[in-house]
Amino acid sequence: MARDERGVTPQSEDFSAWYNELVFKAELVDRGPVRGTMVIRPYGYRIWELLQADMDRRIKETGHVNAYFPLLIPESYMQREAEHVEGFAPELAVVTHAGGKELEEPLIIRPTSETIIGEMMAKWISSHRDLPMLLNQWANVVRWELRPRMFLRTTEFLWQEGHTAHADEADAMAETMLALDLYAHVARDIAAMPVVEGEKTPGERFAGAQRTFTVEGMMRDGRALQSGTSHFMGTNFARAFGIRYAAESGNEEFCHTTSWGMSARMIGGVIMTHGDDKGLVLPPLLAPYQVVIVPIGRGDQAEQVLPPATELADRLRRAGIRTHVDNRPQLSPGFKFNDWEMRGVPIRLELGPRDLAAGTTLMSTRLGEGKTPVSLDLAPARLELELTAFQSLLLQRATEFRDDHTSTVDSWDEFAEAVKTGWALAFGCGSSECEDDIKAATGATPRCIPAEGALEEGMCVRCKQPSAYGKRLIFGRAY
Amino acid sequence: MARDERGVTPQSEDFSAWYNELVFKAELVDRGPVRGTMVIRPYGYRIWELLQADMDRRIKETGHVNAYFPLLIPESYMQREAEHVEGFAPELAVVTHAGGKELEEPLIIRPTSETIIGEMMAKWISSHRDLPMLLNQWANVVRWELRPRMFLRTTEFLWQEGHTAHADEADAMAETMLALDLYAHVARDIAAMPVVEGEKTPGERFAGAQRTFTVEGMMRDGRALQSGTSHFMGTNFARAFGIRYAAESGNEEFCHTTSWGMSARMIGGVIMTHGDDKGLVLPPLLAPYQVVIVPIGRGDQAEQVLPPATELADRLRRAGIRTHVDNRPQLSPGFKFNDWEMRGVPIRLELGPRDLAAGTTLMSTRLGEGKTPVSLDLAPARLELELTAFQSLLLQRATEFRDDHTSTVDSWDEFAEAVKTGWALAFGCGSSECEDDIKAATGATPRCIPAEGALEEGMCVRCKQPSAYGKRLIFGRAY
Repeated sequence: MARDERGVTPQSEDFSAWYNELVFKAELVDRGPVRGTMVIRPYGYRIWELLQADMDRRIKETGHVNAYFPLLIPESYMQREAEHVEGFAPELAVVTHAGGKELEEPLIIRPTSETIIGEMMAKWISSHRDLPMLLNQWANVVRWELRPRMFLRTTEFLWQEGHTAHADEADAMAETMLALDLYAHVARDIAAMPVVEGEKTPGERFAGAQRTFTVEGMMRDGRALQSGTSHFMGTNFARAFGIRYAAESGNEEFCHTTSWGMSARMIGGVIMTHGDDKGLVLPPLLAPYQVVIVPIGRGDQAEQVLPPATELADRLRRAGIRTHVDNRPQLSPGFKFNDWEMRGVPIRLELGPRDLAAGTTLMSTRLGEGKTPVSLDLAPARLELELTAFQSLLLQRATEFRDDHTSTVDSWDEFAEAVKTGWALAFGCGSSECEDDIKAATGATPRCIPAEGALEEGMCVRCKQPSAYGKRLIFGRAY
Repeated sequence: MARDERGVTPQSEDFSAWYNELVFKAELVDRGPVRGTMVIRPYGYRIWELLQADMDRRIKETGHVNAYFPLLIPESYMQREAEHVEGFAPELAVVTHAGGKELEEPLIIRPTSETIIGEMMAKWISSHRDLPMLLNQWANVVRWELRPRMFLRTTEFLWQEGHTAHADEADAMAETMLALDLYAHVARDIAAMPVVEGEKTPGERFAGAQRTFTVEGMMRDGRALQSGTSHFMGTNFARAFGIRYAAESGNEEFCHTTSWGMSARMIGGVIMTHGDDKGLVLPPLLAPYQVVIVPIGRGDQAEQVLPPATELADRLRRAGIRTHVDNRPQLSPGFKFNDWEMRGVPIRLELGPRDLAAGTTLMSTRLGEGKTPVSLDLAPARLELELTAFQSLLLQRATEFRDDHTSTVDSWDEFAEAVKTGWALAFGCGSSECEDDIKAATGATPRCIPAEGALEEGMCVRCKQPSAYGKRLIFGRAY
């Protein structure tokens, strides 16, 4: 079949072209007028809303409260934590004029909010009774991007950022891991992305953090996507902003702080974890429409079929299934089927006069072959089961893909081969020069020291010095 | 009783001081480091979340879909609609540098999104089949404020902005009124604010609109608060941005567009509609905690009382009541009662050993006198009823206040007297010179031409020229 106007370049031919075409054709996004900015269209935004609702519930259930801090931050705030400013300075957008005048001090648009939240925490915390302080913010942030890519790296992006302060180090470390675990659950349970949890090597840490943890997903081109990060700051920001508390002993102590973020980048992760040559494949829990009903028949037949299609949709909605009836009169059923296939709807139903006469509807799933008749009477219960099975299938398929594309390697040649198509589990010496050398030679970077990796000693895959971490790292090319 | 540290200046003494003290003491907000910016603290943000959830549901139920457009807009976009740029130019914040370089074209931070959404609509709409296009965005916007006031006028604020495009004028007008009605319902049904719906006079229109409609609430100092606005743009923005569609006839036509917004300013409206000398009074539907339980007893008694208090809270929560147990050990029950009274919690419950023995809890409502014993067994059902009654009481009380402070006047002296403490229903000639004159003399402006006002002719209360609108206007001093 000729590739029609709505088709996309196959993944196998050019994964990057596939992605770039798909995000526009599926109407997830459009380009903003300013370089690197993105418009999130309703179909894409709905995915974000579903992800956000789930995350927000989990964030609240673990004792955090939402708040909102200003977008504009005095430039001087960024200077207070030396590593932080060094890391972010090249990416800042700066407001120099406002209200018709030049400002006395330039303002930056937040690239992240550690500084302004640190300033406020210093004001709000005085006693050990004020701790822990567990805050979260849903916000837009701006980081100037030279190589923008829709969802993955855009000048402005939407995210949540957790910021917490604790009396002691152990409590702050426990919080850091709790946030990481929350991200791993969101990724697996909702986005069907079998992410690996682990710690970043020093060269990949957040600017200003003592330790950075990450969840890394594998995309269908074998590359890694950092899908959420959680940072243990120690007392770095507490010292920079004066976040102190009176301990029970009466002594003034610095707090230990954390921050953690997950963004709309996850949508890019969903696209690249599950999508195929036909387009998007959406996990039911994130699908704007879980079921689309396509009425079959033109003219008089259409009038016959539409009321029962609408009635079926109502019954499915009452069962909690997000359902859409595609009643666009000017388009053929075949076009509609291809369209919803490309847009990743998990289940499509056909309903024509013959189906109605038989009391059934013809079901196709986004990854299945052929069509199955389903009793109209039993459709809500049956489709609930199908959606649950589809969600599980995606996680299982992605887990198998990840495992099939992960190799345990000890020789450099094996390593170089492995990171062409996936991840390598290999020893690293811990020096940033060696990491740079590996990146220059293969494009791969250490993605993380996996939390679940077995304790094991060995020699660095590149320089043959002893391993620095007591276990193998995951290396891969990354987005 | 001496005014303690947590007390606030009485409303009658200085309403403005009352408001400014209360928003900080109730921990709704804090000042941001940049002039005119505001931190929304968890207790304040929760009110916004509750309002937002209700509005979002209504916006979706009326067929709108959410999307997200960029924060940064090329400065040239603002120039395209002449009145729009004239209205907003003095309030813009401008980004001139980003990524370490000076930008070729300065960018503005959105003060509102008509321009960028207009640009995208022009791209997305081609046929009558694409219409109506019904979009909504939840976002932050920036308007430089010289006289900031928490929630009411801040440099950055949170809001929703609806933007819609229609094939014809009648459909766009119907949408404009639908949004206005939605706002009136949110205000009345959720915030218990008996707003008046009406149209703005030409001098008070949105920059670029053909007609602007408003919902106006009366605050307890008699001033008006514009609480939401809905704009009919005609083809102004469609012409400026080229939003065209092919009609069924095949002709290219300009769309008719609307926009409408409601913001976190509503929280200021809630504070000033219901609050009293003791502090906030929150409508149950917007209260972060609808019920606070204060366990009574120290030492051993506290240990006895806390488990049944927690158990009661769980039962109330299962009944859908937002409940908090104040178990801060270092504070007295009296302090806690005053604290939650100041923070506007609708119902407080005491639970001590004697109450437990009697199988009851002592209930006080935020506006009631004295304490009423309530059976522990029946508490969930009883408190649901009390909360419903409290919500109704607030709306009723505010309606009576508004009506008591609204006078129908024909003489200038009566007018000048009426707007000192409330609203005047009076005739206006429609000239902006006369409106300016009235404002200079009394501080009052025409708030709206009320939708429900009876048709009536008369002479302008100021210049005695014939009335321009066929009914009386509402005049008042405004925030």
